[in-house]
Amino acid sequence: MSKPLVGIIMGSQSDLKIMKDAAEVLEELGISYELTVVSAHRTPLRMIDYATAARGKGLRVIIAGAGGAAHLPGMVASVTSLPVIGVPVKSSNSIDGWDSVLSILQMPSGVPVATVALDGARNAGILAAQILGASDKAIGKKLDAFKRALKTKVESAAKKIESKGWRDNL
Amino acid sequence: MSKPLVGIIMGSQSDLKIMKDAAEVLEELGISYELTVVSAHRTPLRMIDYATAARGKGLRVIIAGAGGAAHLPGMVASVTSLPVIGVPVKSSNSIDGWDSVLSILQMPSGVPVATVALDGARNAGILAAQILGASDKAIGKKLDAFKRALKTKVESAAKKIESKGWRDNL
Amino acid sequence: MSKPLVGIIMGSQSDLKIMKDAAEVLEELGISYELTVVSAHRTPLRMIDYATAARGKGLRVIIAGAGGAAHLPGMVASVTSLPVIGVPVKSSNSIDGWDSVLSILQMPSGVPVATVALDGARNAGILAAQILGASDKAIGKKLDAFKRALKTKVESAAKKIESKGWRDNL
Amino acid sequence: MSKPLVGIIMGSQSDLKIMKDAAEVLEELGISYELTVVSAHRTPLRMIDYATAARGKGLRVIIAGAGGAAHLPGMVASVTSLPVIGVPVKSSNSIDGWDSVLSILQMPSGVPVATVALDGARNAGILAAQILGASDKAIGKKLDAFKRALKTKVESAAKKIESKGWRDNL
Amino acid sequence: MSKPLVGIIMGSQSDLKIMKDAAEVLEELGISYELTVVSAHRTPLRMIDYATAARGKGLRVIIAGAGGAAHLPGMVASVTSLPVIGVPVKSSNSIDGWDSVLSILQMPSGVPVATVALDGARNAGILAAQILGASDKAIGKKLDAFKRALKTKVESAAKKIESKGWRDNL
Amino acid sequence: MSKPLVGIIMGSQSDLKIMKDAAEVLEELGISYELTVVSAHRTPLRMIDYATAARGKGLRVIIAGAGGAAHLPGMVASVTSLPVIGVPVKSSNSIDGWDSVLSILQMPSGVPVATVALDGARNAGILAAQILGASDKAIGKKLDAFKRALKTKVESAAKKIESKGWRDNL
Amino acid sequence: MSKPLVGIIMGSQSDLKIMKDAAEVLEELGISYELTVVSAHRTPLRMIDYATAARGKGLRVIIAGAGGAAHLPGMVASVTSLPVIGVPVKSSNSIDGWDSVLSILQMPSGVPVATVALDGARNAGILAAQILGASDKAIGKKLDAFKRALKTKVESAAKKIESKGWRDNL
Amino acid sequence: MSKPLVGIIMGSQSDLKIMKDAAEVLEELGISYELTVVSAHRTPLRMIDYATAARGKGLRVIIAGAGGAAHLPGMVASVTSLPVIGVPVKSSNSIDGWDSVLSILQMPSGVPVATVALDGARNAGILAAQILGASDKAIGKKLDAFKRALKTKVESAAKKIESKGWRDNL
Repeated sequence: MSKPLVGIIMGSQSDLKIMKDAAEVLEELGISYELTVVSAHRTPLRMIDYATAARGKGLRVIIAGAGGAAHLPGMVASVTSLPVIGVPVKSSNSIDGWDSVLSILQMPSGVPVATVALDGARNAGILAAQILGASDKAIGKKLDAFKRALKTKVESAAKKIESKGWRDNL
Repeated sequence: MSKPLVGIIMGSQSDLKIMKDAAEVLEELGISYELTVVSAHRTPLRMIDYATAARGKGLRVIIAGAGGAAHLPGMVASVTSLPVIGVPVKSSNSIDGWDSVLSILQMPSGVPVATVALDGARNAGILAAQILGASDKAIGKKLDAFKRALKTKVESAAKKIESKGWRDNL
Repeated sequence: MSKPLVGIIMGSQSDLKIMKDAAEVLEELGISYELTVVSAHRTPLRMIDYATAARGKGLRVIIAGAGGAAHLPGMVASVTSLPVIGVPVKSSNSIDGWDSVLSILQMPSGVPVATVALDGARNAGILAAQILGASDKAIGKKLDAFKRALKTKVESAAKKIESKGWRDNL
Repeated sequence: MSKPLVGIIMGSQSDLKIMKDAAEVLEELGISYELTVVSAHRTPLRMIDYATAARGKGLRVIIAGAGGAAHLPGMVASVTSLPVIGVPVKSSNSIDGWDSVLSILQMPSGVPVATVALDGARNAGILAAQILGASDKAIGKKLDAFKRALKTKVESAAKKIESKGWRDNL
Repeated sequence: MSKPLVGIIMGSQSDLKIMKDAAEVLEELGISYELTVVSAHRTPLRMIDYATAARGKGLRVIIAGAGGAAHLPGMVASVTSLPVIGVPVKSSNSIDGWDSVLSILQMPSGVPVATVALDGARNAGILAAQILGASDKAIGKKLDAFKRALKTKVESAAKKIESKGWRDNL
Repeated sequence: MSKPLVGIIMGSQSDLKIMKDAAEVLEELGISYELTVVSAHRTPLRMIDYATAARGKGLRVIIAGAGGAAHLPGMVASVTSLPVIGVPVKSSNSIDGWDSVLSILQMPSGVPVATVALDGARNAGILAAQILGASDKAIGKKLDAFKRALKTKVESAAKKIESKGWRDNL
Repeated sequence: MSKPLVGIIMGSQSDLKIMKDAAEVLEELGISYELTVVSAHRTPLRMIDYATAARGKGLRVIIAGAGGAAHLPGMVASVTSLPVIGVPVKSSNSIDGWDSVLSILQMPSGVPVATVALDGARNAGILAAQILGASDKAIGKKLDAFKRALKTKVESAAKKIESKGWRDNL
Repeated sequence: MSKPLVGIIMGSQSDLKIMKDAAEVLEELGISYELTVVSAHRTPLRMIDYATAARGKGLRVIIAGAGGAAHLPGMVASVTSLPVIGVPVKSSNSIDGWDSVLSILQMPSGVPVATVALDGARNAGILAAQILGASDKAIGKKLDAFKRALKTKVESAAKKIESKGWRDNL
C-alpha cells in the first residue's frame, strides 16, 4: 500500500479488537493507513513525538481510540493541527462507557476532537474517508457507492420481510 | 467573501446564540461559510434538499447544531457523504444536555457524525478548518499560528500569576 | 388480514427480535398491521416516502422502533400528522439504553412522539390498539377484556402463593 | 365548547404553569377538553373514579402530568383502556427531571403510557389531537395545516438570516 | 405463626426471587408476616383494598417491592398511614435499576416511602423489625443480637485473614 | 414538650434550612423531638456516642440528614438498632444530589436506612410519625386526619379550577 | 516562604477561583507551595517540562485542577512518579461536572491520580499536607490540631442549637 | 517483612478479590503492608480503633476499599490524619458502581479521601508507594523503574504490531 494518509493509534493493545474496525473499513475503501499503539499515560513522549511528526510524514487524519480516562485523542489534538477522530472504547473497568465518552468529547475551546459513538471505530474509519473525500473526488465517489450499498442492504432486508413475513426473518 | 466551503446549519433560530461561535472562528481563520436555519423536524424536505445539494454547490464540510432529540446532524449525514460536524446544543427543556449529546454522538455503523462538546460551536468551526487544512497547506499554517496563539495566551497568564501572585489575578 | 391500520417499522432487521412483540399483541387483539424495515440513516428517502404515504393508504398509527441515536420515530413524526409511537431499542453498542430513550423522547415542540419503555414493543402494540379504540367500540371492548385478563392472571398467582406459600412458587 | 374529548389532569396545582400548554394548543386546534387536578398520592380514590368514568362520559384521550415519583399517568392507565399521554414535569425537588421521566416512561408490559418530553405539555396536546385525528378527517386536516405553519415559520426565519446575515438576527 | 404484623407485597410473581429475602429475615427474627402479589397496574382496586384494610387487620408495617416504573409502594402509602417500606427491584427491562429507585424514592411531600437499596429486600425485612422494635423491647433485643452476629462474622473473617494471610482466603 | 421520641440530627448547620421541615411537621403532629448537629466526618466519636445512647434515653426513631458523601445516616444505623430515616440533602458542591442519594440509599445487607426523597425532610418527619403510629393509636388517628387534610386541599384546588377555569388559577 | 513542597497547577486561569482554596489551606498549615497555570491542551510541552522537573526542584506533591475533558492531572501523573492530586473543576460548559470527575478519576492501571470531590480544592490542599505529614511529625501535629478545630466548630454549633433552639440558628 | 507502612482494609471479605491487587503491587515494589477486614457498618468501633491506632503503630498510608454506600474510606479519614486512599468496589447489587464512586469521592471540606478508579486497587497500591516515595528516595527510584517498565511494555507491543501487522496481534 502507498504512503499512509490515516494514522490509527490506540492506548493499549487490548483496544485492538475494537480499533481494527477502523482499519478494515479503510481497506474496504482503498485508503492507506498505519496502525500502532501509543499510550498517553505510559508513553507520553512517544505520543508527543507521534503527533508532532504526523503532518510532516504525510498523514492527513489521525484516529485515536482509548478507554476509561481517555486522554489520547485530546492530547494528540493538543499537539497537531490535523483533524483528530476520537473513539471512546468501553474498557473492562469502565463505568458503562461514560468515562471514555466524556473524556474524549468534552474538549475545551480551541482543541476539538471529532468524537464518534462508543466503540464506533468503524465509523471513525468512514469519517476519516469523508474528511479525505472532502477534497478528493475519487474518494467522494467511493463513499457515495458505499452509501448506496448501505441502502441496498436495508431495501433487500425489507423486501424479504415484506414478501415472506417477519416470522421467517427472525 | 468567496464561495462558501463550510455550511453552518441549526435546527432553530434560538440555537444561533451558540452556533454563531462557529461562524466567528471561521471568519477569524478567513474561511468562507454560509449559515442558515434548517429544521429536521419542521422542514424535513428542506433538510434533505440542503444535504443533497451540499457537495454539488462546493461545500466541503457541514456543521449542524441542534438541541433535545437532536436529529439534524445525523439526518444530514444520512444524505451526504461530506463530513458532518455535530454540535449538541443545551436547549431550554434539555435534560442537562444529555439528550442532544447522545442523539448526535451515538450514530449507527455506516453514518458517522463528528461530534464536539456540548455547546462547542467554536470547536466545530476549528474542526471544520482542520478538515479543510488536511489537504490545504495555507489553512494548515493558519491553524498552526492559531495553536501558537493559544499557547502564548496561557504562557502570559502563567507569567503574570507567577510574578504578581495569584491574589492579584483572581 | 384486512387492510392494515397499524404500520410497524424499525431501523434495522436486528431490531426485529424486539419489535415482533408489537406485531404479536396486535394479532392477539385482531388488529391488522404491516411490518417492514425503514432506516432513517441508510434509507432516508424511503423513510420520507413511507411517512408521506402512510395516511393515504389507510394507516392510522405508526409504531417505529430504533436503537442508539434513534431518529426514525421522530423523523417519521416530522412528515406525517398520524400519531407515531416510538420504541427505544437497547442496541448492542448502546450506552445502557439512554441514547435511544432520549433520542426518541425529547422531541421539540410541535412534533411529538408517543414514547414507550425501553424495549417496550408489546406496550407499543397495545397503545396502538388503544388509539384505535378511542373511537372504535369493538376494539375498546377487546381492550377491556385484555385488562381483565391481566388482572385475572395476577389474582390467580396471588391465590396460589397465599394458599401454598411462597416457597412452592419460586 | 362542546362535550370534552380530552381530559387534562395533573398531580398538583403547581403543575398548571406547565400543563396549561396542553390546553392552549387544544384551543388553537379547536378541540374540546376539560382540565382539573387529580392527585394519585393525595386523592387516590378520586383518581380511580376519574379514570373509571372517563370513557363513559365521552373522553377519548387523557393527558396526565406529574413530577417527582410521578404515578398519576401510569395509575390512570391501569384503570382505563383509553390512551393516556404522560407529561413528566420537572418539579422543584426533582433530580434534574430523571425521576418523573422514568416513573412515567418505564411502565410494565400490558399498561402503556404515551410519554412525551420533559415539560412537553404542548406536545401532549398535539399528540392528543393526532390520536383524535387518526379517525377524524377534519382534525387530520387541521393538523396538516398546523404542520405547514411550523414549516413556514422556519422558512421565513431562514430567509431573514440568509438575506440580512446572522448578526442582525441574534 | 401468629397474626401477621408485616405485609409483604410485590408487583409481580417474578419479583419473588428478590422479595423472599424479606420473608426469610423476618422468619429468622421470629416476626409473623403475610406475603402475596398485588399489582398497582394490573389490579389497582385490589391494591386499594389491600392498603385500606391493612391497619384494621393488624398489620403494622408494609413492605412493597416493584420494578421499572414502580408505583406499588407509593400508591399503597397514598392509602394507608402505616409505614411503607419500598424495595426497588431491578427488573429485566430496567434502565440499570434507576427507574425503580427513582419511582419509589422521590415521593411528593405528605406521602413518604421508606426506600431501601436496589434489590435490598433483606434490609427491608430488618427495617420492618426495627420499626416494630422501636416500641417492642423483645424485638429490640433480638435486633441487638442480630447486630452482634454481623459483627462477629466480620471479626472472624478478619482473624482468619490476619492469621493465615489473604492468599488462603480468596 | 415531653421527653423526645424522635432525634433529628444533621451533618452540618448548613443543612438546617432543609432539616427544619422535619421538626415543623413533628410539631404539627404533636410529637416530641430533639434536634442537633452531629457530623460523621468532623465528630465521629460524638456520632458514635449519640447513636449508642439513643435507645436508652427514650428515642424511638432517628432522622439523619446529610449532603455529598453522606455517611451520617448509615453510620448511625451501624451503631443503633433503632430505625434510622435518611434525608439526602443537596449540598452546594453536590453532583446534582446523586452523591447524597446513593451514599444513603445503597446500604449493605444487615444495616438498612429508610431513605426519603432528596431534600425530603418533611416526609422524614411524617415517616417518623408513621413509625410511632404503627403501635400508637392516637398518632395513627392524627395521621389519618393529616391524610384527609391533604385530600381536602387537592379537592378544593380542583373545585376552584373546575368552576373558575384554569386561567384564573395560574 | 521557603522552597515550595507542593506545586499547584490548573488548566486555565478561570480555574483560579476554585483552585485558590488549595493555596489558602496550605498557607493556614504553613506549607510552602508554588502556583501557576499549565494547560495540557494549549501548552502540552510546558506541561511535560513542568512534570519532568517537579521532583528535581524539590516538589513532593502536585495538585492539578481542570474542568471538562480534564487531562492535566492524569498527564502530569504519566510523567512524574510524585503523587498527583486531581481536582475536578465544574467549568461553565460542563455536563454537571461528570466530565471532569470521570476524566480525572478513571485512570488506567499503572498511573493513579488521587482524586478529590468536584471543586474540592481545599481538600486537595489538606490531602497534600497529609501526604507530607505521613513522614513529617510536625505537619502531622498541625493536621491533628486542624482536625480538632473542625470538631470544635461542629460542637459549638451543636451547643448553640441545643441551648437556643433551631429557630434562632437558621 | 518489616513493620507495615501501608494498611489495606476492606469492608467485606468479598472485596478481597479486588483489593488483593493493592497488596500484590506493594509486594512487587517491596513495600511492607498489613491487610485485614474492617467494616464501617458491621464493626464501627473496630473501625474507629483501627483508624485511631494507625499512625501510632507506624502506618503511613491507609488504603480502604468498599462497595455500595461505601463509608469505610471516609470514616477512617474522619479519625486519622494519615492520607487515606479510597477504592470504590463495584459490588454485586451496585448501581453500576456509581454508588461507591460517589460515596467515597464526594467528601466534605476538611476530610479528603484520595479516590482512585472503580475497582482500581492496583492503582491504590501504586499511589501509596508514591506517597511514601515523596520523601523516600529509594522508593522514588523503584517507581521510576516501574514507570519505565510500563513504557517498555507498550513500546514492544507497538513494535510487534508495526512489524507483523495488526492481524497477527489480535
